[in-house]
Amino acid sequence: MIDPTRVRAALEQRQENFSLPQPFYTDEAFHQLDIDAVFNDEWLFACNSCELREPGDYLTLEIGATSVIVLRDADGEIRAFFNTCRHRGSRICLEEKGHAHRLTCPYHQWVYDLDGALLHARQMPAGFERNDYRLRAVHVAIVCGMAYICLAETPPDITLFRDTVTPYIAPHQPWRTKIAASAMMIEDANWKLVIENNRECYHCTGNHPELLATLVESALPDDPAGSRDFHLLMASQAAKWDRYALPHLPADGGDEFRCIRLPFHRGAVSFTPDGSPACGKLLGELTDPDLGSVRMFRVPNSWHHFLADHIIHFRILPLSASRTVLRTTWLVHEDAIEGVDYDVDTLTSVWNATNMQDARLAANNQLGVGSIAYTPGPYAPPEFMLRNFSNWYANKLTSYLDGTHPHRSIALKVSNG
Amino acid sequence: MIDPTRVRAALEQRQENFSLPQPFYTDEAFHQLDIDAVFNDEWLFACNSCELREPGDYLTLEIGATSVIVLRDADGEIRAFFNTCRHRGSRICLEEKGHAHRLTCPYHQWVYDLDGALLHARQMPAGFERNDYRLRAVHVAIVCGMAYICLAETPPDITLFRDTVTPYIAPHQPWRTKIAASAMMIEDANWKLVIENNRECYHCTGNHPELLATLVESALPDDPAGSRDFHLLMASQAAKWDRYALPHLPADGGDEFRCIRLPFHRGAVSFTPDGSPACGKLLGELTDPDLGSVRMFRVPNSWHHFLADHIIHFRILPLSASRTVLRTTWLVHEDAIEGVDYDVDTLTSVWNATNMQDARLAANNQLGVGSIAYTPGPYAPPEFMLRNFSNWYANKLTSYLDGTHPHRSIALKVSNG
Amino acid sequence: MIDPTRVRAALEQRQENFSLPQPFYTDEAFHQLDIDAVFNDEWLFACNSCELREPGDYLTLEIGATSVIVLRDADGEIRAFFNTCRHRGSRICLEEKGHAHRLTCPYHQWVYDLDGALLHARQMPAGFERNDYRLRAVHVAIVCGMAYICLAETPPDITLFRDTVTPYIAPHQPWRTKIAASAMMIEDANWKLVIENNRECYHCTGNHPELLATLVESALPDDPAGSRDFHLLMASQAAKWDRYALPHLPADGGDEFRCIRLPFHRGAVSFTPDGSPACGKLLGELTDPDLGSVRMFRVPNSWHHFLADHIIHFRILPLSASRTVLRTTWLVHEDAIEGVDYDVDTLTSVWNATNMQDARLAANNQLGVGSIAYTPGPYAPPEFMLRNFSNWYANKLTSYLDGTHPHRSIALKVSNG
Repeated sequence: MIDPTRVRAALEQRQENFSLPQPFYTDEAFHQLDIDAVFNDEWLFACNSCELREPGDYLTLEIGATSVIVLRDADGEIRAFFNTCRHRGSRICLEEKGHAHRLTCPYHQWVYDLDGALLHARQMPAGFERNDYRLRAVHVAIVCGMAYICLAETPPDITLFRDTVTPYIAPHQPWRTKIAASAMMIEDANWKLVIENNRECYHCTGNHPELLATLVESALPDDPAGSRDFHLLMASQAAKWDRYALPHLPADGGDEFRCIRLPFHRGAVSFTPDGSPACGKLLGELTDPDLGSVRMFRVPNSWHHFLADHIIHFRILPLSASRTVLRTTWLVHEDAIEGVDYDVDTLTSVWNATNMQDARLAANNQLGVGSIAYTPGPYAPPEFMLRNFSNWYANKLTSYLDGTHPHRSIALKVSNG
Repeated sequence: MIDPTRVRAALEQRQENFSLPQPFYTDEAFHQLDIDAVFNDEWLFACNSCELREPGDYLTLEIGATSVIVLRDADGEIRAFFNTCRHRGSRICLEEKGHAHRLTCPYHQWVYDLDGALLHARQMPAGFERNDYRLRAVHVAIVCGMAYICLAETPPDITLFRDTVTPYIAPHQPWRTKIAASAMMIEDANWKLVIENNRECYHCTGNHPELLATLVESALPDDPAGSRDFHLLMASQAAKWDRYALPHLPADGGDEFRCIRLPFHRGAVSFTPDGSPACGKLLGELTDPDLGSVRMFRVPNSWHHFLADHIIHFRILPLSASRTVLRTTWLVHEDAIEGVDYDVDTLTSVWNATNMQDARLAANNQLGVGSIAYTPGPYAPPEFMLRNFSNWYANKLTSYLDGTHPHRSIALKVSNG
Repeated sequence: MIDPTRVRAALEQRQENFSLPQPFYTDEAFHQLDIDAVFNDEWLFACNSCELREPGDYLTLEIGATSVIVLRDADGEIRAFFNTCRHRGSRICLEEKGHAHRLTCPYHQWVYDLDGALLHARQMPAGFERNDYRLRAVHVAIVCGMAYICLAETPPDITLFRDTVTPYIAPHQPWRTKIAASAMMIEDANWKLVIENNRECYHCTGNHPELLATLVESALPDDPAGSRDFHLLMASQAAKWDRYALPHLPADGGDEFRCIRLPFHRGAVSFTPDGSPACGKLLGELTDPDLGSVRMFRVPNSWHHFLADHIIHFRILPLSASRTVLRTTWLVHEDAIEGVDYDVDTLTSVWNATNMQDARLAANNQLGVGSIAYTPGPYAPPEFMLRNFSNWYANKLTSYLDGTHPHRSIALKVSNG
C-alpha cells in the first residue's frame, strides 16, 4: 500500500490550473492508488447495452486485476458480476464477448444462474450452503441504454448525471442501435494523460487534419476565440435545435461530467472525411441529418459523440502507470444495413486516424513527464476542462485519504476479512 | 525483504480447508518469501541421475535467481554446486545440459575440478589460497536414482521419505532408465496453483478426456465416491500386487509426500491413447505390463508416475508470483530402442495434452485470484490433498518467521556476511 | 527512495579489491540510486561535437527516465537542454538525431529558440511570462571536440580532466573528424559490470581473438608481466613518440580517469583484422600511421581509443539494474572518403566482434552475481583498474548519502518544488 504522506505531499505540491506533479503520472504505487480510490469506487462506462441483445449475451472487462462480467439476464435486465468463481477463484468467462445459458466455471464446473445464484457444485458435502456462494454482484446503472458499472459496495449517486444528460442524448435513442465497428488500442500513457488529451482541442490544429475537416475546435457556444463565422453558424444551428426542442447549451456537470451540443463546420454533418453522413438511416426518429453532435463525457473513463446518424463511445481502462487501453465503438441504427446504409471504412476512418495521432501525443507526453526536469506547466485557456478534471481528481484522492469517502470500496471489505 | 507482519496477517486470515488468501498467489514479495523460506530450504527434485550417465555430464537448473550445476563426478557420484564463479561471480556452465572434464569459467578461465576444487586461477598473486575459493557445494540426496538437491546449509531430514517410498518405486528401477523425451512449459500461474491443480482430479472430468481414457479418478483405494466397478477392479489388482509383493496402500507421508499404487481402467495398462503399453521393454525385472502406476509426490516441486513400462517425472520451479516452469521427462528402460520398443508420440501424447489443459486451467485460476472480489473458497472432498499442501505450506512459513526453522538457509549466511 | 541504511550496510560489507556486494549489481532501488547519485550528478560523455556539424543539428540521449537534447546553436556553440516541454511536459525532439531551425513541441506547438528561449506559445493569456518558461539548460563542456554534459545544478570541476588529457588527444584533432559508423547494443548487465569488463584485459586471452591480433594486453608501460619483446617494443615506440613530442606515460587521473599511449603489436598500427591502417587519410596533421593508441576513459560512462587513423568512442548509459546500452562510434578524418580512404567493414569488424563477446561475458556475470551463493571475489593483479573504479564509486555514494556532495542535483531541486 502506498504511504499516504507521499500522496498528501504530492497533492500539496499541486497548483490549480497546472498539470499534475510527476508521480501521479509515472509512479506504479500511485497507479494502484488510482485503481483503489477511483476505478474501484466510481461509476465506469462499460458498454452500450445493445451489445448484449439476447438473454445470456455477456462481455467482460478488466478494472485493474479485477475482471467483471456484464450480461443480460433471463428477464432481460443488464446485470454485472465479478468474474471469479467462489470455489477456488478461477475466472469463469474467458472471452471478451460471448453467450451462455448459464455460467459454468471451466475449472470444476460449478454452475451459476444468470442472476448469480450458484445452481450446482459437484460433490460438495452435506451442509454446504449454496446460498453463501453466489457470484458477487457489481452495481449496474443504465443511462439511455448505456451500461455503467460500479465495483464499490455503495456506489455514488448517479441521478444528477442521468437526469441531466438524458434530454440531450435520448433523441438519439442509443438503446436502439447496433455496433457497426469497434477497435481496441493500447496507449503508452497514464490514463490521466489520455483524459487530458481528450479534454482539449488546443492540440488539434497541429495534429488532427482529418478531424478538423468537420469538427469545430470551439468547446463553448460563446467561445471568445471563435471566429465570426463560428458565431453565425452557432446562432443559426441553435435556432434550429430550439425548433426541434433539442437541448444544446452546456449542462452543468460540475467537475464530473459535461454535455453540450455543438455544430460541425458549415456543410458537414458527420465525422466522415468529406462531412457527409456516415449512415443513411438516421438514429431514433430523427429526420434531419444536420444536428451537429452531442459531446458528453463523465469522469473517469469515457467520452461520447451522439450524431444524427451514428454514436461513438470511447472507453478507457488503466493497465499500469504508463499504459491505458482505449476501446472505441461506433454504433448505428439497429435496422441500418452494412453496404446499403453505411460503410465501415467511411464510418471509422476519421476517428481511427485521430485515435492513432492522440496515442502518439500521449505517449510522448508520458515520456516527457518522466524526466527529472519535468515541472507542472500552466494550462492554456482552451484547456479549461483539464482544470476541472484535475480538481475532481485531487478531491477524489483527498476524500479517499481522509476517509470521508462516501462509499466504501469492496476492495477494503475483502482485504479486511 | 517482506514485512513479517504482512505475512502473519495473511496466515491468520487463512482458514483450513480453504484456498489461500490472495497475496500468497499474487504478490511478488510473497513470491520472494517462497524462494527464501521454501525453495532455498527444502529438498528439491532435480533430475533422474540417468540423465548424467558419464562422469562430467551436467545439467543446470535455476531456483529463483540462483543457478545450480548438478553433475556426475570422476568417481561416479552425483554432486551439485552453485553455478557462480568465486572470482567475480560469472556463471560457469551456460547450457541447460552439457559435458565437461573440468568446469572452466568462461570469463577469466578459473578452472574447477568436478569435486568443486579450484585447480587453477591465472596470475593470482602469492598468498592466494585456492582452498578458500572452492565452488560452493549444494546438498544432494539420491532416492532410487532420483537426484534431490537442497540449497540450505543444513538440509531437512530426507530419511523418512526415502525409506517410505523406496519399496514402492524400487521395483521400477528408475536408475536403469534413459530419457525418451522431455518438455519444458511455462505456466502463467503461481507455483502453488500449479501444485493445487496437480493434487486433485476434481477438475479431470470437465477437462482431461485423453487422461481419463486410462486414469482412474479415485485417489484412494477405498474411495467412497468410487463406483462398484472401481472397487471390484481395485480388489483384483490389489490381490495381484500382493502376490508380486508390490506395496500399494497409501504411504503415510504426512503433509510432505504421498505414495500409492493405483490401477488403470480395466483393460488399460499405460498412459497411452488406447491404454496399451507405451514401451515393449518393461522396466527393471518386471514381466507383467499391467501394474497400474505408483503415484508419488513430494512438496514442494515434483510429482511422478511409475508404470510397468515407463516413468514420468514432473518438476516445477517458480519464476515469479505468476509464472512457473514445468519440466516433464518420460523415461524408459535403458535398453529400450526407439522405433522398436517405443514411439515418442505415443509415449508423450496423453500427458502433453494434459499438461496443456492444466496450464490453461492454472492460468485462469491465477487471473481470477487477482480480483478484488476473490475470497478463499472451500475445498471439495476430492480436494483433500490440497488441505495437506496448504497446511504444510503455512507451517513452513510460520516456522521460518518464528526462527524455529530447523535449517538455516545459505541465503541468510551470505547476506549477513 | 531507497533506505540509506541499506546502502550504508552494503558499503560497509564492501572489501577493497573485491567485487561489489550483490545489491549494487542487481537491486532496482540501487539502480535508481546510481541514476540519482552518479548519472544525474557527473559529467557524462554525450558525443563528438562533429556529429552536430551545422547549427540546428541535434541528438538526444536518455539518462534514466530523463531525455536530453544536445545541439549546435545559431552561434555554432554546443548546448544541451532537457527534452521536456515547459507546458505539459511532452518530449519535444522525438528522434535520436535530427536537424531543426527551432524546437517545436509536437503537442501544442510551443516554439523554442536554439538557445532555449520560449519564442511562442499560442493563445496563452496576457500576463504569461515567456521568460519563466525557457527550456531548462544542461551543462556542457567540450574537451578536444568531445561533448560532455552534466545534469546537476552545479557540475563537478572538469578542469583537471581537460587539462590532463588534452595533450594526449589534441594531436589526433577529434574536432576535425566525421562519423564513419556507429552501433547501438543493449547489454543484459548492470552498467558497473560493463565498466568492470572494460577496465581489464585479464579476460582477453580466453575471449577476444580478433582484438588480441593487434592489442597488447599490458596496460602499463612497465608491466612486470610483460614479455621481453613487449619491453623492447615499448622502448622503441616511446623513443619515437618522444621525438614527435607525443605524451605517452600514464596520466594521473586518480580514480576518475586514465590516459596513456600504448603500442600495438609489432607490425600492427590499427584495430583491423591484419593490423594495417583502417583509413588511408590520417587524423589531424599526423603523418606516421604507427602511433599506437591513446587509451582514455573517464568515470562513469565512456572509454576511447585515439589512433593515427581513427578514433573510437564507447558510451554507456544504464537502462535498469540489469540492462545497459552501449553506443560505439568510429570516426575518421573529416575529409576521408568512404571506399577510397576507408572501408566500414574493415574499420568496425574487430570492435564489433569484441563488443559482442564482452556483452556475452557481462550478461553471464550479471546472471551469476544474482545467485544467493554469490560473494564478492578478489580482483587479480591485472584488474587493478577495477579497484580504482570501485573505490571511486563507493566514495561517490558515500558523499551523496552524507550530504557532503559538492554539487546539488537538479533532481533534488525539482522534487522539493
